[in-house]
Amino acid sequence: MIDGLPVPPGLRQQLGFLLAAHDLTAVVRLNRLLDGSRGETSAEHSWHLALTAITLAADVAPGVDLARVVTMLLIHDLPEVYAGDVPIYDEAARAAVAEAEWEAATRLFGQLPAEQGAEMLALWHEFERAETADARFAKAIDRLQPLLLHCAGDGAVWAERGVTVEQERRLMSVIEAYWPALGPVATALIDDAHRRGLLS
Amino acid sequence: MIDGLPVPPGLRQQLGFLLAAHDLTAVVRLNRLLDGSRGETSAEHSWHLALTAITLAADVAPGVDLARVVTMLLIHDLPEVYAGDVPIYDEAARAAVAEAEWEAATRLFGQLPAEQGAEMLALWHEFERAETADARFAKAIDRLQPLLLHCAGDGAVWAERGVTVEQERRLMSVIEAYWPALGPVATALIDDAHRRGLLS
Repeated sequence: MIDGLPVPPGLRQQLGFLLAAHDLTAVVRLNRLLDGSRGETSAEHSWHLALTAITLAADVAPGVDLARVVTMLLIHDLPEVYAGDVPIYDEAARAAVAEAEWEAATRLFGQLPAEQGAEMLALWHEFERAETADARFAKAIDRLQPLLLHCAGDGAVWAERGVTVEQERRLMSVIEAYWPALGPVATALIDDAHRRGLLS
Repeated sequence: MIDGLPVPPGLRQQLGFLLAAHDLTAVVRLNRLLDGSRGETSAEHSWHLALTAITLAADVAPGVDLARVVTMLLIHDLPEVYAGDVPIYDEAARAAVAEAEWEAATRLFGQLPAEQGAEMLALWHEFERAETADARFAKAIDRLQPLLLHCAGDGAVWAERGVTVEQERRLMSVIEAYWPALGPVATALIDDAHRRGLLS
């Protein structure tokens, strides 16, 4: 219905992009809701990441550009509408999907007006490369949020996958590497989960 | 598990708030996903609103503070974790739930450290009052996004509820009232839906 809509061409492209992006609600992650009833969708995950960044930034990352961080977090999973989601525990598959995600990002952001699409794609690449402070804080939040949910949700995903405390410590060490101020909370969460027997 | 976590008290409050907020994934809206498979959750709706604001702001609202607008949109539905969601088509129930939402907002944001909680509650009130430019643009986006989904999703919600084109024009007239630059796209979407027989 967008093709024939009598609005300016740029706006028509933006609406088409927003409709394509909405399919992120159909991508279901390994992480479960806190009540365990179903998997969290990537759209929900993106929302909660942005809220997490907004909530924590003033204390642990006062120097970042929060608008850029939040935009990165809201768009970082969008290529999954074409490439799907691969859990971090599938380490080989994660590496294999990287190229597909780059192609999907180009395809999705390419639906926007040229200049805007290039800007969003650049921001997506910035997140993936994790070289700037904004991207590194965003990356740390993207790892911390699932850890928080696993801990609060009684570790069902860890149990299903047989995740050991050593594996979790290794995978979550990137939180401290990306953003040192978040290292202690990651350690506290893993220690607490280990003490409660949630990690083998 | 948050209560005994060995992290600073303010951070513990923030993590508790983030876990309480995550229940917005359990609030299912009347609007359906584009494939009609299920209702959109309020968490997904909030994510898509923020993405919509980011995508459209440069052209239709260059003067707003996008970081504030996006934060408003990410938090505007949070009181639903206690008060639930009431569709706009239930106009009497919408008015009745307003007080419950204010109490729920106070309860939810009250879980944050005092100063931060007061700031977020003030931002939530600013959105509800719709008196500032940032809040009015956010309000317009909050009405435009469901309209876009209804149109692209073949109007199943309209059909179920027997929504007439006159009712939809009246309910959507707030889009132009809140943000005149978005009026033409709302009109174009309703006209298109009417032409395709989606509104009676």
